[in-house]
Formats: sequence, C-alpha cells, structure tokens
Amino acid sequence: MPDLRRDPVTGRWVIISTDRAQRPSDFIREPVQFKTGVCPFCAGNEAKTPPEILAYRPGGNGANGPGWTVRVVPNKFPALRVEGELDRQADGIFDRMNGVGAHEVVIEGPEHMHTLATMPEKRIEDVLYAVRDRLVDLKRDMRLKYALVFKNHGAAAGSTQEHPHSQIIALPIIPRSIVEELKGAREYFNLKDRCIFCDVVRQEAKDSERVVMQNDTFLVIAPYASRFPLETWILPRKHDSTYELSPAVNFGDLARAIKSLFQRLDAVLDHPAYNLVLHSAPLQDQPTEHYHWHIEIIPTLKKITGFEWGTGVHMNPTAPEDAAKFLREAEPNA
Amino acid sequence: MPDLRRDPVTGRWVIISTDRAQRPSDFIREPVQFKTGVCPFCAGNEAKTPPEILAYRPGGNGANGPGWTVRVVPNKFPALRVEGELDRQADGIFDRMNGVGAHEVVIEGPEHMHTLATMPEKRIEDVLYAVRDRLVDLKRDMRLKYALVFKNHGAAAGSTQEHPHSQIIALPIIPRSIVEELKGAREYFNLKDRCIFCDVVRQEAKDSERVVMQNDTFLVIAPYASRFPLETWILPRKHDSTYELSPAVNFGDLARAIKSLFQRLDAVLDHPAYNLVLHSAPLQDQPTEHYHWHIEIIPTLKKITGFEWGTGVHMNPTAPEDAAKFLREAEPNA
Repeated sequence: MPDLRRDPVTGRWVIISTDRAQRPSDFIREPVQFKTGVCPFCAGNEAKTPPEILAYRPGGNGANGPGWTVRVVPNKFPALRVEGELDRQADGIFDRMNGVGAHEVVIEGPEHMHTLATMPEKRIEDVLYAVRDRLVDLKRDMRLKYALVFKNHGAAAGSTQEHPHSQIIALPIIPRSIVEELKGAREYFNLKDRCIFCDVVRQEAKDSERVVMQNDTFLVIAPYASRFPLETWILPRKHDSTYELSPAVNFGDLARAIKSLFQRLDAVLDHPAYNLVLHSAPLQDQPTEHYHWHIEIIPTLKKITGFEWGTGVHMNPTAPEDAAKFLREAEPNA
Repeated sequence: MPDLRRDPVTGRWVIISTDRAQRPSDFIREPVQFKTGVCPFCAGNEAKTPPEILAYRPGGNGANGPGWTVRVVPNKFPALRVEGELDRQADGIFDRMNGVGAHEVVIEGPEHMHTLATMPEKRIEDVLYAVRDRLVDLKRDMRLKYALVFKNHGAAAGSTQEHPHSQIIALPIIPRSIVEELKGAREYFNLKDRCIFCDVVRQEAKDSERVVMQNDTFLVIAPYASRFPLETWILPRKHDSTYELSPAVNFGDLARAIKSLFQRLDAVLDHPAYNLVLHSAPLQDQPTEHYHWHIEIIPTLKKITGFEWGTGVHMNPTAPEDAAKFLREAEPNA
C-alpha cells in the first residue's frame, strides 16, 4: 500500500509509492562527466570573472590573481541586480517590483576536477566560512530580506559550469517556501514550546532507521516525508536558527559530514547530479527559538511531472528508510 | 533590469530575468521523437491494460476489444490504491495515512502517432467529455477530495508511455498548491466581490499583449507571472468554478483552442515535451463564485535548480509578453 506522509514543518504531503521503482539501479541517471575547455573559474583565469568580492589567499597574494583557495565573485549573468530602487508598483490588477538583489558565485577551489566527495575537508570548511562571511556582509543591506545559498552539480541539476561552485542569491522578499517553513515552525513552537527541528533530530536519532550518519554536532538523515529518492538533510544536533550567526557551529564537523555524505551518494548512485540548498533564518531576523538551520540535498533522479506542478505533492518511489540504509551501508572510500 | 512579478492568485513571486536567454532557439530542448515497439495503449492490445473503466465505442463493440475512440483504464502501476481505509495515524511526531485514491489513464485514441496538435478536433472533444465523465463518477466516492487531471508528453516531461494519454489521480486530501490557490481566490473575492480569474481574463483581453489567441468561450494567455518560458493558460471567458459541473462549457471551442495552441507550440519550439494540468475546484465542493477552472501548460525547457527548490520562486528567462508574441505569430498549419 502506498504511504501518504506529511512533512511536520511545512505540512506538505508526499506519496511514498514503492511499487514503481525501488533500488538505486532503477533510476534514470545522468552521471556528471567532466569536459575540457577554458573555464572562467580555474586558477589563472581570474580576469574572466567580474572582480572578486572575497577571497581566501593563504600566501597573501593580490586580489584577482592566483593564490586563492576560495573565491567569491558576482555572477556575470545575474538573476537580480544590486543597483537601483525596488520601485514597487501595480500593473493593473498585478503587482511588480524591480529585481533588486545580489547574485554571487562561490568558487570552491582553484582545481576544476574536485567535487564535495574528493575535496580536502579543510577546503570544504573554507567554503563554509566564506559563505558565512558573505551572509554577514549581505545582512547589512536592509533591502535584502532573504539569502539563498545553493549548489547545482551536473547539467541535469541545472548547472552550466562544471567547476565546483555554489551560488548565493539575496532577495528583496522572503520567498514563499521559506515563509511556509517559518510559519509551520512557529505554530509548532506556539503549541509545544519546542523547536520542531529539535524534536525531529531527537526522534530520528532515537529511531535510527532514517539516519545516514552522525558526528558530535551534526545528524544526516533521509527525512520522513522525503520528496525525492535519496533526498538527505544535514541538521545541527543543537538548536541554532541562523547559519551565519551561529556562535557554536563546528564547521570542521560539518565539512566531515558533507564529505562523507557525498562519498556515499557517489558510491550508491555513481556520481549523481544534485541540488544542495541551505535553509537558514531570514537575513534581517534576530536568532529565534523556533527555527533551525539545515542543509537539504536532492539528487536529480526523477523528472518533475504535471502531477507535481499541479498539486505540490511529490511522488517518491523510494522509502526514506531504504534510502538511509543504502547510504549507511555504502563505505566512504576516504 | 530583471522584473519581480507576483501571481495575483497564489501570491507566488517569479523573477523574469531576460538577460540570460530570450529566444525560443536558445532553450535546451529534448524534442519528442517516436520509437517503435509494442504499445499497451494501441488498438488491438486492450488485453495489456487492466479492464477498462470507460470507453467511447461509436460502433457499439464490446468492452476491452477494439472499436473505441477514447478509453479510460486503471493505471497498471498506481500511485494510490482504491481499496482500503485511510487509517490516519501518528508516527511519533510525524503524520501518515494510507495512500488511498484512484489513478486512471485516459487513452486519447487508438493511434500511436497522434498528438494534441495533429488529432482531429472531434477526438480532443471526446477526450474532454471522457475526463468530465470520470470526474463526475469519482465525485461519488466521498473519501476523494481532489482529482488532478494532467498530461506528461515526452520523456523530458516525465512520460514513460509515448502513446497519447492523460492521467487522473484522485487524492484523499486537497493538495497544498490547490489550497493556496483557493485561499488566494477566496481572499480576493472577500475583498472585491469579484472572481480574480474573471478580473485576469478581463484585463488580459483588454491589454492583449499576453494573449496568444481567443475564441467565443476561451482565452489563451501567457500569464503575467509565468514561471516557465512559454508557459500558457487556457481560461473560460465566462465564470465557472468546476470543470465537470459546467452547464455551459463548449468543449468544441476548448478542443479548437487546445489544438491551435499545440500547433503553435510545435511550430515555435519544434515539438517540445510538456506538462498540462487542469485546475478545477475540489471534488466535494459546490460550485463557487470565487474559483475559476483553467488549464496550465508548461513546456519542458529548463532544469529546476536549487534556487527553485529552496525558495519556490521560479526564474524565467522569457518575458510572457515575448512568449505570447512568438505564439501569436506562429501560423497554425491546420
């Protein structure tokens, strides 16, 4: 019998229907393969990007030349522009505003061929610090209400550059799916005086059947109402609403969890394309008791159909209990 | 400057950012091509599907043999099952229920090679009637709260059968995106005493820059806050909340609008993959003054990225005004 499951935070239902495909080998996969060519993100090609916003240069070399480990630049084809007024207005019965915001690229190292499964842990840690530094800076622009940090890996996941990179888009609105998540979390807190994510962490760690791995500060799970096959979330075990303001976050532990998870995904799915998204509290909010930052990873294993577009309900052929087992049993070849 | 636009019904924002790609020839396309092989939906292969639920047989032949023009069968691999109890229950802090529902396939004709652009109009009209007949029947099962009618065309759009067909999935819940749409429409009605879709129809017909085509009873537009390049909606010009209860609907006019639209899409995009979704009021609701059924068509032209998954905000490189112009100027080769 298929299973209808509700995400406890957003309230969205998913259909876990394992009759149609079950094992990782059943998925249509478009594995990520490397091509050659001139890459604007490789060391030595710094002039091919707009001037850098931030870079870590252990050797102390000058800006926009080589010698960096992580480099943040504006997107050359930005979805939103930093300059200008929002100019909110009606267009008959419709509403519009100018696309004011920021669109940055975090280049995750000078080497073209690395992935989150092969990069040194220290490099992943540097990327995590660079993201934090950029979010702290973007916060100062009061027009910016929410910053989404995300990574598309592989053409099937919408990536157009194969050099390892993430993106930050800061928006003048709090987007719909974040509003829903915040609302669900706040309602739960009002009812129970507890953070719902903390409750999820506690129940998942206790049940253990959906746990992929854990270390002192992070828990990696296949979520109860997984929308996608092998969807995984990384959550801080201790309550924390805001990634960039976290006093206690251990980016070393997070880097180790990320690397281990991607080694497992590569082993189970043969280098899948994926999307990774950081969920954190809105830029202009104070840290809260009811929200809890986390990372969601979605391997690109299925097409979105009219059913998903029409309902917002996802159909998932792999139970998260199976997904967690596949990933738990995959030996990281570190 | 990119444009942030708000959908007037659901409140969802989209980013219209035309710097990145503009012309139909810029899209990555996976055109739909026909393969050969044994098709369970072709005339003569009726035994390869579960026994039919409904068929139109102008010659009066017996069930589950040839002689039909449109045939509805249960999905052989259903996402939901008709038998059984919902059995709503808690699973610790989580909620679940059994996947009770219906999953049917509407086979849109005995010929394998037809599409909505090449089928006779009379056949499309038959399909529209068959969908109505099935929805009227599904309504009788009080467990079923919402029925989604949709069509996936082409592998890139998630279709696994190329023979022309649509699907109906009836759910024991009203799904999230319908709840939002209903809520937005109700709030507007409470404020203005008018149906928001009627207002959209009126403003779009007057402005005309987003109109693709129209006839006496239907308007085809590229919506103001289009999420996808060349997204189009077909709306009844006259108020009507519920597809299957419409006393006045002219399925002949609707069939003509559908055929003309798909001829235009084929001309502009060279036979694109697409998803089509019918939005109609929930099964157990009485016809209402605030909701307005319509059809949404999404050509599969872009990958969904971490940005869309993380925010629910879509980034669209094609302004709907341009999309409507491309489609308006494409000559249907009827």
